[in-house]
Amino acid sequence: MNDIKQYMQQLGQNARAASRLMAKADSNAKNLALLAIARTIIRNRALILDANQADIAAAKKSRMDAAMLDRLTLSEKSVAQMAQGLEQIAALTDPIGEITDLKYRPSGIQVGRMRVPLGVIGIIYEARPNVTVDAAGLCIKSGNACILRGGSEAIQCNQLLAKLVHEGLASAGLPAAAVQVVETTDRSAVGELITMKEFVDVIIPRGGKGLIERISSEARIPVIKHLDGNCHVYVDEEADFNKALKIVENSKTQRLGTCNTAESLLVARTVAAEMLPGIADMLIKNGIEIRGCAETLAIIPGVRAATEQDHYTEYLDAIISVKIVANADEAIAHINQHSSQHTDAIVTENYSSARKFLREVDSSSVMVNASTRFADGFEYGLGAEIGISTDKLHARGPVGLEGLTSVKFIVLGNGQVRG
Amino acid sequence: MNDIKQYMQQLGQNARAASRLMAKADSNAKNLALLAIARTIIRNRALILDANQADIAAAKKSRMDAAMLDRLTLSEKSVAQMAQGLEQIAALTDPIGEITDLKYRPSGIQVGRMRVPLGVIGIIYEARPNVTVDAAGLCIKSGNACILRGGSEAIQCNQLLAKLVHEGLASAGLPAAAVQVVETTDRSAVGELITMKEFVDVIIPRGGKGLIERISSEARIPVIKHLDGNCHVYVDEEADFNKALKIVENSKTQRLGTCNTAESLLVARTVAAEMLPGIADMLIKNGIEIRGCAETLAIIPGVRAATEQDHYTEYLDAIISVKIVANADEAIAHINQHSSQHTDAIVTENYSSARKFLREVDSSSVMVNASTRFADGFEYGLGAEIGISTDKLHARGPVGLEGLTSVKFIVLGNGQVRG
Repeated sequence: MNDIKQYMQQLGQNARAASRLMAKADSNAKNLALLAIARTIIRNRALILDANQADIAAAKKSRMDAAMLDRLTLSEKSVAQMAQGLEQIAALTDPIGEITDLKYRPSGIQVGRMRVPLGVIGIIYEARPNVTVDAAGLCIKSGNACILRGGSEAIQCNQLLAKLVHEGLASAGLPAAAVQVVETTDRSAVGELITMKEFVDVIIPRGGKGLIERISSEARIPVIKHLDGNCHVYVDEEADFNKALKIVENSKTQRLGTCNTAESLLVARTVAAEMLPGIADMLIKNGIEIRGCAETLAIIPGVRAATEQDHYTEYLDAIISVKIVANADEAIAHINQHSSQHTDAIVTENYSSARKFLREVDSSSVMVNASTRFADGFEYGLGAEIGISTDKLHARGPVGLEGLTSVKFIVLGNGQVRG
Repeated sequence: MNDIKQYMQQLGQNARAASRLMAKADSNAKNLALLAIARTIIRNRALILDANQADIAAAKKSRMDAAMLDRLTLSEKSVAQMAQGLEQIAALTDPIGEITDLKYRPSGIQVGRMRVPLGVIGIIYEARPNVTVDAAGLCIKSGNACILRGGSEAIQCNQLLAKLVHEGLASAGLPAAAVQVVETTDRSAVGELITMKEFVDVIIPRGGKGLIERISSEARIPVIKHLDGNCHVYVDEEADFNKALKIVENSKTQRLGTCNTAESLLVARTVAAEMLPGIADMLIKNGIEIRGCAETLAIIPGVRAATEQDHYTEYLDAIISVKIVANADEAIAHINQHSSQHTDAIVTENYSSARKFLREVDSSSVMVNASTRFADGFEYGLGAEIGISTDKLHARGPVGLEGLTSVKFIVLGNGQVRG
């Protein structure tokens, strides 16, 4: 335990020192590193797949479940995508050093803001080895150092990837300690990582709700996170039926297990008899189980009754809760009470309902006439994302490069003093 | 204790409900409330001063120290300033609902960001009753609800001010619970306030370092804060002597007890013999004690030697530490090691030194040829400030209206679904 503490403190010190160098690294060096890492990943793809196979063999021995095995498994294609991801990050504009809002004040000083890195970022994740490369790429580009703690099930592959990242950093004259992979699988390493305030500025956990809740409650460092995605689609009184049908279908059925999948459908009372049967039919044909309120059951006989708990539930499964509401006001109140503040959408042709929904729904993404599945860093044009935040402080919604940065005020004077 | 818990939970519930109404309140209603509060403060200034006198009498009985008594004491002028502060906040642009960066994506959706309130803000402060009104004004304008926990020494005045704020809110049709003053002086109320995650979104403590450290370590809610201001002025190799003299004088001597006062002077070795005697002479004439490094002592005989601890110290007193450094690189390294990341300034005519200092000093305000005393919300054009943050997450530097807000992503579609 003391050895682990010492080891993690050493990683922390290395990261802090590297973060100073990364903060002043120029855009060219960072991009050279990203492209070098992409090339070395492609060159070493056979080795990466071998390491992944070794991890998979060990995971099978320890009887890992099929879903986790699936997330752990790399292919030629997914290795190529890692490299492409790095090339895409290299092509993004460097956010660091950007100066905005530089204006003269009556005192004669100019005041503006300069975008700066956060410093050291701790990332805790499970299974997917591609997160190692994605996270490293985003942290390098945003001028941060990072400490990556992947799951023990991917340790061989992650260590190899770290080695390749270090080669790329070195080739661009950047410090290897800008990206460190925790090499011990001892669980107490996580406890150290999330409490080393002096060395780590922010923690980003990625994984199941249980992991994230535990990390949030034990961390002594700010955490950027989302716990779950209980996303709603509200079909308003003036919804276009065809749009509603397409949006509900895509939001619910395109992928069942993602955080931006819809888990709850709200329908305005005035259009429920007209629209709900068609929508329910589509859902049932897609194999989705409906759990409805009493009014829903009257319109769609034979479906199961929803409990209050259903309206709070992120199923991540072929189930949707359905509730009939009076109007946009009731829909907004229901969403603000039950949703996880991830992503909620209204389907409407009515200007005032759309305007009200956008203003009043208190979620990280609020949509009009679009599928909740769009809540994603690439779809939003952020270029890449390290995760999604449903918190209000610092970063909210998909977190791209900007979420990994802060700002400082800069003041340019000519000898001014305060009167 | 259980009563206090119940009482604070009730304030929390009230605040959460009020925050929903404040979030959708229009700019006009918020401004009407601010102006009504300003008027009622002026009308009731005699009552306010009476309540303040009662607090002062009680404070004297309990032998409060002179500095704290000074901060507690209101005058006709300071009451008038409270009202003016509210008028100034009313005149600021409403940040809430502002939509930025709304752009079409290849999928056909438009993605942008809308500025939204944080929700419920807990503010913990000591002595100064004017903070009650300033904080209420900023929270109202930014569409938040707040729970204000002033010191027990100002309880009578704060309760009266709360009553006046409620009158103003009511006259504009806004909920009184948008601004609640904790009416118990029981210390356990603070413990409840900083751990009621379900009701409070952020804590802003204002006061001594001890108070803020305690709150930060015990809070289970994000804290916007600064602990101290160990601010530096670095006189570079190509400094203009007259600017250096004026800036050091103003930074150190204009006010001794503020967080943006300089506590440390760094001088480039090549100009130390030429510039330091004049600067030291000015400081000594201003009654400032110098604590210098060995090289400083050789140039300015008779001053006290600085310990390593001096370079980390925020004196808030007529003392300054002085160190001679090789150049801007060494100054930056010294500052990043020793400063409290509040405000640090370079005095230079050299373009490259200025550019490097701005980029590499990791503080919330970084200045060229200007007094550190400018680090202030009004001076920066923020209109008002609720405090200063030296943290990197969410808000950094002086925190005005924008620091009390967050953003959400908005998506405007026309029936788009994800492919």
